[in-house]
Amino acid sequence: MSTTSKERVQSPDTGAEQRLKVLGISLPEPPEPLGIYAMSVQSGSQLFLTGMLPTRGHTPQFVGRLGAELDADAARESARVAALNALALVRRQLGSLDRIARVVRLGVFVATAGDVREHPKVADGASVLLQDVFGKASNPSRVVVGVASLPLGVPVELDLIFEIAE
Amino acid sequence: MSTTSKERVQSPDTGAEQRLKVLGISLPEPPEPLGIYAMSVQSGSQLFLTGMLPTRGHTPQFVGRLGAELDADAARESARVAALNALALVRRQLGSLDRIARVVRLGVFVATAGDVREHPKVADGASVLLQDVFGKASNPSRVVVGVASLPLGVPVELDLIFEIAE
Amino acid sequence: MSTTSKERVQSPDTGAEQRLKVLGISLPEPPEPLGIYAMSVQSGSQLFLTGMLPTRGHTPQFVGRLGAELDADAARESARVAALNALALVRRQLGSLDRIARVVRLGVFVATAGDVREHPKVADGASVLLQDVFGKASNPSRVVVGVASLPLGVPVELDLIFEIAE
Repeated sequence: MSTTSKERVQSPDTGAEQRLKVLGISLPEPPEPLGIYAMSVQSGSQLFLTGMLPTRGHTPQFVGRLGAELDADAARESARVAALNALALVRRQLGSLDRIARVVRLGVFVATAGDVREHPKVADGASVLLQDVFGKASNPSRVVVGVASLPLGVPVELDLIFEIAE
Repeated sequence: MSTTSKERVQSPDTGAEQRLKVLGISLPEPPEPLGIYAMSVQSGSQLFLTGMLPTRGHTPQFVGRLGAELDADAARESARVAALNALALVRRQLGSLDRIARVVRLGVFVATAGDVREHPKVADGASVLLQDVFGKASNPSRVVVGVASLPLGVPVELDLIFEIAE
Repeated sequence: MSTTSKERVQSPDTGAEQRLKVLGISLPEPPEPLGIYAMSVQSGSQLFLTGMLPTRGHTPQFVGRLGAELDADAARESARVAALNALALVRRQLGSLDRIARVVRLGVFVATAGDVREHPKVADGASVLLQDVFGKASNPSRVVVGVASLPLGVPVELDLIFEIAE
């Protein structure tokens, strides 16, 4: 059975911020808009994030497509970098990652060329980080597709919806 | 006018499970995760499903792209197979399809090569099944796009959000 | 901090319908379904729209891909045309654009060929219109990707979720 967020609100001792510390992860500066949009929007208890890219500032850290300029290891690492940006953004928006009840949706768009099959491996670069930080019981549903191109030429873009604890 | 789910909760006699019986459809085993994610997540009254593929177990039943290795009839049938997996998953998660108030969103990603135009026909493979089971008044909004590649090399992936009756 | 919709309900004097008048924009006939789906679905306070295309009736006003048959200016204009269809649809569904509390999500699928980077510029064709009508404080989160192909051969498809004021 799927469970609802109320059963899973994190305690301060074992919450996401504490896990980040234990993992030795320090978050980057959160990304800024490249255009006319908000970085995140809250609708009810859902927090919709703008598509997260593997950037620092406005500079892409990875450029290319899976199956052409980049291999699966590089694309997977780019997914992790994009997920770190998502965490940084959520912390700035909500004040603390501990306010997240769970991850509702992870969409992963992977720029691909030719007949590649390693989409799930690439997406796991984001999924492993999210599971490490929020715990297995907060894992999202996931939709992974291979696309023709992405903004700035990056290999991965993440589409994330979080649920905020009441 | 769009209507809300409360007006449309199904009665046991005419509900989705009864319609499935009348249609003579028996559902497959629901799909299992290929990675680090949940097969579905409930957020409020919305049930988000992981991307549904035309698989049995972890084995793809269709491989190829519309406009290259597969024609529209095969891609359309693959969309139906993916939708059957979605129904099987929802029944396992909720106990019964009768708990669904309506389908909110159907996203259809079709792997395409070249200048194809038959995306709506392919997507209808899923839409016809959903309408047969949940009824015309429960039809979802729909977003259909042609993508470069999909996990396992399948031609179709479905992105589904359901609303659960209170 | 992200803000919630309650803080931002529009007054009749400065609402979206009034802004449309000041801008001199008259909306087209709203689009009709190309298949077995609803043009919009309300779930709680969220209004999910079917993918909006740059069409009039069922006729595409733009055909081609960014980086091949169309340049960024044409693709950007097609995004604006699709966004006008979205506004027309929302008005028909809700009676008035003033019932919109904010735009929650704008997804922009751009059909691309080759190594293009102008996705954000294309997406801004929709974003500028939405900001002009609903105001900067109602700007959505945004996810922009480059896809292989789109229904009817159009260059842009919009995936929109609105929040309805209570």
